[in-house]
Amino acid sequence: MESAIVCIVRFIKNQTVQITMSLPLPSPPHYRRIAEMLRLTLVSGALRPGDRIISARKLAEREQVSLPTALEALRYLEAEGLIIARPRSGYFVRQINMPENAQPARSLPGPVPVTMSAVARSLFDSAEARLVPLGAALPDPAWLPVNLLQRALQTAGRRLDARGQSYSLPPGRSDLRSKIAARAALWGALFGADELIITAGATQALRLALHAVCQPGDIVAIEQPAYFGTLLLLEDLGLKALQIPTDPKDGLSLASLKEAIQRHRPAAVIASPTVQNPLGASMPVARKRELVALLASEGLPLIEDDVYGDLAGGTQRPPACKAFDQSGNVIYCSSLSKTLAPGWRIGWIAAGRYHAKVLQARIAGDWAGAPLIEAAASQILASGDYDRHLRRLKLRIAEGIRAVIAQVRASFPQGTRVAEPEAGFLIWVELPPQTDALEVHRRALAQGIGVSPGPLFSPEAALQNYLRLNCANAPTPYLLNAVRQLGIICHELACGH
Amino acid sequence: MESAIVCIVRFIKNQTVQITMSLPLPSPPHYRRIAEMLRLTLVSGALRPGDRIISARKLAEREQVSLPTALEALRYLEAEGLIIARPRSGYFVRQINMPENAQPARSLPGPVPVTMSAVARSLFDSAEARLVPLGAALPDPAWLPVNLLQRALQTAGRRLDARGQSYSLPPGRSDLRSKIAARAALWGALFGADELIITAGATQALRLALHAVCQPGDIVAIEQPAYFGTLLLLEDLGLKALQIPTDPKDGLSLASLKEAIQRHRPAAVIASPTVQNPLGASMPVARKRELVALLASEGLPLIEDDVYGDLAGGTQRPPACKAFDQSGNVIYCSSLSKTLAPGWRIGWIAAGRYHAKVLQARIAGDWAGAPLIEAAASQILASGDYDRHLRRLKLRIAEGIRAVIAQVRASFPQGTRVAEPEAGFLIWVELPPQTDALEVHRRALAQGIGVSPGPLFSPEAALQNYLRLNCANAPTPYLLNAVRQLGIICHELACGH
Repeated sequence: MESAIVCIVRFIKNQTVQITMSLPLPSPPHYRRIAEMLRLTLVSGALRPGDRIISARKLAEREQVSLPTALEALRYLEAEGLIIARPRSGYFVRQINMPENAQPARSLPGPVPVTMSAVARSLFDSAEARLVPLGAALPDPAWLPVNLLQRALQTAGRRLDARGQSYSLPPGRSDLRSKIAARAALWGALFGADELIITAGATQALRLALHAVCQPGDIVAIEQPAYFGTLLLLEDLGLKALQIPTDPKDGLSLASLKEAIQRHRPAAVIASPTVQNPLGASMPVARKRELVALLASEGLPLIEDDVYGDLAGGTQRPPACKAFDQSGNVIYCSSLSKTLAPGWRIGWIAAGRYHAKVLQARIAGDWAGAPLIEAAASQILASGDYDRHLRRLKLRIAEGIRAVIAQVRASFPQGTRVAEPEAGFLIWVELPPQTDALEVHRRALAQGIGVSPGPLFSPEAALQNYLRLNCANAPTPYLLNAVRQLGIICHELACGH
Repeated sequence: MESAIVCIVRFIKNQTVQITMSLPLPSPPHYRRIAEMLRLTLVSGALRPGDRIISARKLAEREQVSLPTALEALRYLEAEGLIIARPRSGYFVRQINMPENAQPARSLPGPVPVTMSAVARSLFDSAEARLVPLGAALPDPAWLPVNLLQRALQTAGRRLDARGQSYSLPPGRSDLRSKIAARAALWGALFGADELIITAGATQALRLALHAVCQPGDIVAIEQPAYFGTLLLLEDLGLKALQIPTDPKDGLSLASLKEAIQRHRPAAVIASPTVQNPLGASMPVARKRELVALLASEGLPLIEDDVYGDLAGGTQRPPACKAFDQSGNVIYCSSLSKTLAPGWRIGWIAAGRYHAKVLQARIAGDWAGAPLIEAAASQILASGDYDRHLRRLKLRIAEGIRAVIAQVRASFPQGTRVAEPEAGFLIWVELPPQTDALEVHRRALAQGIGVSPGPLFSPEAALQNYLRLNCANAPTPYLLNAVRQLGIICHELACGH
């Protein structure tokens, strides 16, 4: 128990700021605080499924609380399915991680609250650029068209003059919205510039989408594994996560989704059907069509996160689900952050029949956008520069992916599985069972290497033996050596060191 | 009824996009839809206090609903205090605007839901720069230091290179946070750079603050009149507004606030104690201290909106409430939007004991900021350029205020009252009783003049005989002629045209 806390504290120590983030919110009830500490123990892998955990009496003694409070903490974890009571024997750890092969789980889990912001905060390290950048999902800064970006900003500055310094009121500059709509029309999107709202990045678009269709306490169906940004949003908005098994080839399991909808009536589905994060999976077009039809018939909104979509396909990217949306049921979100300029904070949302609500929330919650950057982005999309850059970027990514996968195969212990992603720059590595990815992460951090541990991609911090690696970097000896180091760490852990 | 709808539609027609925003949300109950339509009639000024409104039977017939549904709509409006039932006579319009003199109301109103986004949307017109800019609260673009801003962006671009295009992760660049903290220390702020989080403008900071301390359905104490952005936020977050009379000289009435806290237990207080929008009022320092002490003793967070604070005072601006915050109870929000560059979207929040929660919500809901702009802003704050610009800006504003007030006094009907604001660039004009500011706004729009009508500043669209005018423009004959035109419109309305 105490060691788990120390662990987490150490694990966060390398960060420059705000480790308080990982602490519980101000004065939760005692039982809740104790339950959260026990959860850390479970997540840390110090105990295994089937292990007996501390008795209520000992827990009360150790935490200096009453016996009823200790019992309440244990019952709380039991209600969440993390532990199980056996009559006259005490509490035992349940199986909380994914089945040990990568097949979709047979028995569907129910909705769970999301409590993983402490784990997620760790990822920020890797973006500090002092770590080997295998963690955050970011293209190598050297791969960004910096000169092009700077030139576009200067041109836009000269052209707009004072207007470039004033508000860009929602829905955002019409020239940018027209360019985005025109590009989307190439893959069959049914929205025009009028249906688009510019946002400060795709995360904000996802927030606006969830805000438009959910109330606190609602259930949202998500992919399993899920993009951790989605999980942070669910946690922040007080929404429950209903995990739908997602296949590394076919994406979201439609059969499981159907069953989950019948059983739990979620308020919405949020998914990345094109180049899923972390799997790299894209649903085949026929299945996208089927997903849209299913949700339209159920009257359930689909929040489509398409930030990696432009990295898919050859000369022509595949259609997003939004291409099949006749009813305005699909809320489409994307951005330029993964392909052009993360720091420009240019995202967008085509919210279908939720447009008015989203526009109102964007005005109320953010007031306005940055006209200079919107104009510069519009200019780049209008020229052939974006497509030229994309082509070059995809070639570089392919090279990065190949090199990192080869190094993983050469350096990681037997039992490791890694598949080539359909597209995008992330790989999802399954480590041998019982390898604790959080511990891999900790040891890697200590060596200056960033990685994203599996628990980040699960609302319950499960997926303990998975790692996501970012491959959008030039495969230098320096980078590949870091991958080799990760392999050594995994070997050590596999041997029980 | 129908004419009110037409009215609203016409009134919104000049806008380029999205008039659907002003329509009710998807499928509200029938009675609610009918009530909202009746509310528009009331707000439009087509009926006067004391007038009898349509009977339930006629309403049912016209709207093709059942009699109980029509009655429910009327009872809904009655519960909100907009109409009143008289036995055997039907429903009558109540006095819903402020008392006719500018004194704080004697009897305190209870908390009310906020439903004014339709009205608020109209303001966006004035920011389209095609209107005479007396509406939106924005300094004349010609008064922004455009060359300075462009140069700073270019320098930052060169200095950061690729890093300028990547994410600036929350809490935001430390150089900018240090500069902001250093400037705030000059007026006695007790926060350091570590306690600041950069946001994309102050609206976002206010959203994060409300999100951190409120649950949907909670009551929030606001100023009366209130900044309409605050009202939009309350509406979007499902919060109820509790109006506290606010004096054009002394600001928030502390006696009324005390009473309102006892009676209604709000979850938070949101206010602009320095240069209030729309009043231009600043609380004397002793009263700020008293406000902070009162709320600390009640354990109620104060959300302090200080966007106009830098425009107050002579060589030294007065302290914000945050200067007296020993307990971390004050959530301080500000930005560069009203003084330097609205379109840079640089705001900040010092959230006291809510820091961790706000930081987490900023990450979850917006992910990151724009490093290039943060670095450029930091550079401008570090040099003497910002202070030099502020001095010039304040002189220009004083000139604009003087000229517009003189023109109002010369051109508006008898019974108009206007006071010189303590600071800032807004004036709050009380028109003769029964002058309908929404109608003034409509007629002004038709002549290409933007104004902000009083109902924008009330959660119930009251304050019908007030106008807010933006005076941050060079007092050219063109501008002053527009003020004269407004006077003519008010005269027409006073004579019943």
